[in-house]
Amino acid sequence: MQLGLVGLGKMGFNMRERLRAGGHEVVGYDRDQQVADVPSLAGMVERLTPPRTVWVMVPHGEPTRSTLRELAELLAEGDLVVEGGNSPYSEDRENADFLAERGISYVDVGVSGGVWGARNGYGLMAGGETADVERVMPVFDTLRPEGDRDKGFVHAGPVGAGHYAKMVHNGIEYGLMQAYAEGFELLEASGVVTDVAGTIRAWSHGTVVRSWLLDLLVRAMEEDPELQRLEGYVTDSGEGRWTVEESIRNAVPTPAITAALYARFASRQEDSPAMKAVAALRNQFGGHAVKSSDE
Amino acid sequence: MQLGLVGLGKMGFNMRERLRAGGHEVVGYDRDQQVADVPSLAGMVERLTPPRTVWVMVPHGEPTRSTLRELAELLAEGDLVVEGGNSPYSEDRENADFLAERGISYVDVGVSGGVWGARNGYGLMAGGETADVERVMPVFDTLRPEGDRDKGFVHAGPVGAGHYAKMVHNGIEYGLMQAYAEGFELLEASGVVTDVAGTIRAWSHGTVVRSWLLDLLVRAMEEDPELQRLEGYVTDSGEGRWTVEESIRNAVPTPAITAALYARFASRQEDSPAMKAVAALRNQFGGHAVKSSDE
Amino acid sequence: MQLGLVGLGKMGFNMRERLRAGGHEVVGYDRDQQVADVPSLAGMVERLTPPRTVWVMVPHGEPTRSTLRELAELLAEGDLVVEGGNSPYSEDRENADFLAERGISYVDVGVSGGVWGARNGYGLMAGGETADVERVMPVFDTLRPEGDRDKGFVHAGPVGAGHYAKMVHNGIEYGLMQAYAEGFELLEASGVVTDVAGTIRAWSHGTVVRSWLLDLLVRAMEEDPELQRLEGYVTDSGEGRWTVEESIRNAVPTPAITAALYARFASRQEDSPAMKAVAALRNQFGGHAVKSSDE
Amino acid sequence: MQLGLVGLGKMGFNMRERLRAGGHEVVGYDRDQQVADVPSLAGMVERLTPPRTVWVMVPHGEPTRSTLRELAELLAEGDLVVEGGNSPYSEDRENADFLAERGISYVDVGVSGGVWGARNGYGLMAGGETADVERVMPVFDTLRPEGDRDKGFVHAGPVGAGHYAKMVHNGIEYGLMQAYAEGFELLEASGVVTDVAGTIRAWSHGTVVRSWLLDLLVRAMEEDPELQRLEGYVTDSGEGRWTVEESIRNAVPTPAITAALYARFASRQEDSPAMKAVAALRNQFGGHAVKSSDE
Repeated sequence: MQLGLVGLGKMGFNMRERLRAGGHEVVGYDRDQQVADVPSLAGMVERLTPPRTVWVMVPHGEPTRSTLRELAELLAEGDLVVEGGNSPYSEDRENADFLAERGISYVDVGVSGGVWGARNGYGLMAGGETADVERVMPVFDTLRPEGDRDKGFVHAGPVGAGHYAKMVHNGIEYGLMQAYAEGFELLEASGVVTDVAGTIRAWSHGTVVRSWLLDLLVRAMEEDPELQRLEGYVTDSGEGRWTVEESIRNAVPTPAITAALYARFASRQEDSPAMKAVAALRNQFGGHAVKSSDE
Repeated sequence: MQLGLVGLGKMGFNMRERLRAGGHEVVGYDRDQQVADVPSLAGMVERLTPPRTVWVMVPHGEPTRSTLRELAELLAEGDLVVEGGNSPYSEDRENADFLAERGISYVDVGVSGGVWGARNGYGLMAGGETADVERVMPVFDTLRPEGDRDKGFVHAGPVGAGHYAKMVHNGIEYGLMQAYAEGFELLEASGVVTDVAGTIRAWSHGTVVRSWLLDLLVRAMEEDPELQRLEGYVTDSGEGRWTVEESIRNAVPTPAITAALYARFASRQEDSPAMKAVAALRNQFGGHAVKSSDE
Repeated sequence: MQLGLVGLGKMGFNMRERLRAGGHEVVGYDRDQQVADVPSLAGMVERLTPPRTVWVMVPHGEPTRSTLRELAELLAEGDLVVEGGNSPYSEDRENADFLAERGISYVDVGVSGGVWGARNGYGLMAGGETADVERVMPVFDTLRPEGDRDKGFVHAGPVGAGHYAKMVHNGIEYGLMQAYAEGFELLEASGVVTDVAGTIRAWSHGTVVRSWLLDLLVRAMEEDPELQRLEGYVTDSGEGRWTVEESIRNAVPTPAITAALYARFASRQEDSPAMKAVAALRNQFGGHAVKSSDE
Repeated sequence: MQLGLVGLGKMGFNMRERLRAGGHEVVGYDRDQQVADVPSLAGMVERLTPPRTVWVMVPHGEPTRSTLRELAELLAEGDLVVEGGNSPYSEDRENADFLAERGISYVDVGVSGGVWGARNGYGLMAGGETADVERVMPVFDTLRPEGDRDKGFVHAGPVGAGHYAKMVHNGIEYGLMQAYAEGFELLEASGVVTDVAGTIRAWSHGTVVRSWLLDLLVRAMEEDPELQRLEGYVTDSGEGRWTVEESIRNAVPTPAITAALYARFASRQEDSPAMKAVAALRNQFGGHAVKSSDE
């Protein structure tokens, strides 16, 4: 089918490739004219035959919001917008209502798979009206991995459910990575296992902990077996925070996911103010030595 | 090759099947005569041609220790014992030294894969002298998944390293399961996603969180989509505790794995004594209502 | 000085007593006419001489908001409202702006001390303009504990800072209670210490862990040494959640405070959905026994 | 009464002062002849009239064990040894049995209060036979804070109970300090409260979080309001680790205390190997930028 695609970064660019290989007609727009098929959003919309479908794949927050505002002006009744970025689910209802005023439909989709999705297909979680989701199904069927539709795609619920599912997916992802990372550190620190990289590689088949993330860890360790070339500095892009905020809103204890989030926070601190306070206290009551900050 | 196998429970029984299918001659002993090939340990040893290899696959602790003591009497110089149960690595050195006094070699092996190993092959982590590990290699090659040896088997280091690797593997397993479990609970609690089972099934291809454990969760939810038939009661068999103890010994922070262990502890409590204390405190300072235990 | 006081519950009632004992003229209003000095908010305002000061001490959320709306109608330019409830700091700026449109000043105050404040004095944290805070100082000086003003009162910063300080105070309170509670549970569970109540009482002087909360725990255990009469069920009234949300917003790891919050969440669950998922997984891969929910 | 005191470091030195001020005859021995009253352990024992009481106050581990071995040779039937250091409770039974072979009694005592105990008195937790504990009571009564005996002293149970109580006390102490430290860091990071030191000082009276540790934090911040002169580097001396190990042994969830322990571990790491693994994974699946370690 015909699709407008806004945002041709790491994710959008690859998706365009996969969609075209699947026989779809994709008109891609990006601020970067090197990769864009059209010079402007308006140009993209002109190239599409109504009723149009436009997939938005730009960073969440202001970039997504301004794109939707622009599209609301350019699109017409009967068109449909797919929000495929990592927007917080809490914004989907508002987005949908805003577009509905102009008769434009809205589907939110969580897309997982990273840079590998181009080859393997993307895991997709959609939220919206059934008719709207069905309308985009040819595109979903090409983007998702081959095989059964329900193992790689889900219509998770009403508007917002797609991003909600993706948010929880990413929260889980934080926890999974943290678990592997803790195991890796313990293996390295204890020294009992002398072939750490080989041990992790051996886990990739037959074991209970085998997974795609483990395969990626094996891959990373092929180039750098002790991960010495990297700094233990990890940013976070929102979904982990939202997952914990949602767990608080719903009174659900999520200690492992939260531990993963906090480990990232700590990884970015030069020094821990909290630990300064503990050092100060120990010095006060026990005369324990402290390190002064200019040592 | 020829192998004595002690312990024909869920793991040992399946391993015998896989080994025989792979062309090995297995003499299996178990206290349960229904499954045993020989009536006694002594009978098993008699049936083996020196230098013998005996694989011990019984519960850790006293069952393993008493089996090793008996084998020490029955075996002879040049024989080799493989300890394949989930023993704590801290006991391997002692086991090895005890058998070495009689000229018997010792290899410890961590075996992962559960009841699925019979079909898929088992992930194997071995500890011991290189010559000893090499000697058992034909057996390892049959037990492990097909394909490259190093993706399903590792000679992790000296005696103890096999069980150490398995211990950390299980610690990671705790963390992975906890991460999925927290995500599942949040999806159920929030109600935004209306097809929770379908969402988790959709994660099984293409996504970052795809894994064998996820496949098993999908499988469990096929029969019981909201897991209503189960109680949230989870035992633990040692490796998770040992992982945390080791992390403390090595001053390695393992918050996610520890959270998983503590969640299991809490799952087995009728009521939380700690929370009684918090309730008592809130009642004292704020006059907050408490629930009396006979409500 | 003269003060209108709205809300005569557990906190407000005691505060009126302490203020009157300190020589202030308090006109108290509450929906409960049994405790109110006046029949209506309007009646209260009429009884005050401009420029008036009105202290609002009602539950946060809608009760506080509707009280402020009503007061905005009744008060006049030059009057001052003190918001002394446990409102989230994020609402203070809005409250202040709303009242400022009518020329009414706004001070937010965090009040700590619980039911004991009547006797011991309340710990007070104020946010607002310096002139506004100074204007209420006679009231603060009576409410706070005797002794140095700066050990029981702080002008913490601009509007919102009082409630922010109180929020963090309560977050810390969660962590402190959790630490004592965990220690109590370990003492009870291990059985090595045979006089648990006596041990905790002995900590009340000389030790590093002595505190007012410990004194309250000692008090609770005088009546019920093993806290058997209580259920381990603990509610939460918002500040703990907000503290964790703020820690996420500021990328500050707060694992102990978060653990305390999650322990409360778990205390209110009949069964843990997350642990159902872990039980299901263990059953799938290892054939581990599960408890069915109707056992 | 007459008392031999071995170990005159920060704790022992102060205790000798307090005991002498209380009218006891103390013969102190230390390897440091500057502070010792006698040139040798043997000299100390000679100066004491049987039946002797000797208080050992040296670092736990080998120093304590070798002191007990030496004392076993020098003392005689009917004498009594008090182990007042921070020994793990698991060693007390062995110590007691070893001395009992020579007819020497044994009492273990946990001593809290740090360098302030000299002035305020020490919180004391004793384990042992009732008759033995009674025998040392005059010394306990002088060391503990003035006032009721049971608010500063407890006979916690049989041999080992004193150190067990002290271990849990220190575990709680870890949790309390962590809670204050997290609150401090959040106040500093958010910037909403402009007078952080003043806010913490204001908590010292009237509030729910008031405590001796808070007083010490106020004291530390008087000299260094933002704790800028300190490094966030915190060692640990064993009791925190033992508390978590015991919680695992007893299947008691202690997430706040464990969080405090792990925060100390992390405070001593130059870089986090676990976070290297997370960074590596994110780079693999998402092409997320990483910091190379030589940046």
